[in-house]
Amino acid sequence: MSGNPPVLDELIERLAKLPGLGRKSATRLSLFFLRQPEDEVRELAQALCEVKEKIKFCSLCHNFTDSDPCPRCSDPRRDRGMICVVETPGDLLALEASGLFGGLYHVLGGALAPLSGVGPDDLKIAELLQRVDVSGADEEHPPIREVVLATGSSPEGEATGAYLAQRLKERGVAVTRLARGIPIGVDLEYVDNATIRQSLENRRSY
Amino acid sequence: MSGNPPVLDELIERLAKLPGLGRKSATRLSLFFLRQPEDEVRELAQALCEVKEKIKFCSLCHNFTDSDPCPRCSDPRRDRGMICVVETPGDLLALEASGLFGGLYHVLGGALAPLSGVGPDDLKIAELLQRVDVSGADEEHPPIREVVLATGSSPEGEATGAYLAQRLKERGVAVTRLARGIPIGVDLEYVDNATIRQSLENRRSY
Repeated sequence: MSGNPPVLDELIERLAKLPGLGRKSATRLSLFFLRQPEDEVRELAQALCEVKEKIKFCSLCHNFTDSDPCPRCSDPRRDRGMICVVETPGDLLALEASGLFGGLYHVLGGALAPLSGVGPDDLKIAELLQRVDVSGADEEHPPIREVVLATGSSPEGEATGAYLAQRLKERGVAVTRLARGIPIGVDLEYVDNATIRQSLENRRSY
Repeated sequence: MSGNPPVLDELIERLAKLPGLGRKSATRLSLFFLRQPEDEVRELAQALCEVKEKIKFCSLCHNFTDSDPCPRCSDPRRDRGMICVVETPGDLLALEASGLFGGLYHVLGGALAPLSGVGPDDLKIAELLQRVDVSGADEEHPPIREVVLATGSSPEGEATGAYLAQRLKERGVAVTRLARGIPIGVDLEYVDNATIRQSLENRRSY
């Protein structure tokens, strides 16, 4: 229909379905690939396939990994007494990029969303509780002092956090969550009301 | 360094080098691929390789194609008396998407840029002049009535257009260029001065 070679149209179609790309950027990317040396494009295709072949999920933190347990879970320099609970691998990467958390992680794989049919059994919640239950049992499972909830600020994320907090407190472990408030460097006039409300409720004295 | 599996980091690195993608979108895309069914990702990789294997350049218009001459150049419904000259295949696609030009094309492969070392020999200029020279010679090469220059509005595009206009007029063929002016639906206050100047110089009487 476009008069393009069908293989080109197919590539454009496939790229246009990727998140954050529309038809225009898919077309621009495809034309870029046409200009690229064949080796470069072939190596990108290879990298795509390898990611799917080699990457599995860590049986401990449920983040993706090429070895089990993953390098983070088996790193002796990390604080095994703290677990930070996140919804997605992307959230984990964002926290890791800050370099400010030195404990272990637990990736839930999403947030509770009863209206979309996502219940506790669809997330790695039993696995999290299990990690807490076996902690302190022996050398291999050192005690967990604290679970930091870093689920999202969406209604689903908040509900998931509240649900986890309850289940975890029953087990006698300290549960905290990331502070909410005004981001650094952002003018108050651009901050939404929900954030301002939280920043007022959680205000701190000098 | 990031604690990610190396195959994942490699994919992110490669995606981040693509035009229009930065590290953040490359990471988001990579995480998306991790969640996708393996088949889908493999098919995308396959589509990438096929584009490089199957697509060549048309010996007539120098656009990419999987057959030579390309389907546009061999389409009997197109007006063989008009050639529209564009810098890149992307420009050609944009014009084709409008559905408003029914002639043939000629893709230069860029614009003259003496400061970057791009001279007439680096573009398909000799090939364009050759197309004009052989036109009208026989049944296979019908006469060319008009060459429409659709090179860019950058200084390089303008210089390329002026250079081509001169070389083409020597050959006695009619040469035109796309009109410049205020785009439809854009407020004057958002239009740059160079465009306003052109729209004044080329004003039309009612």
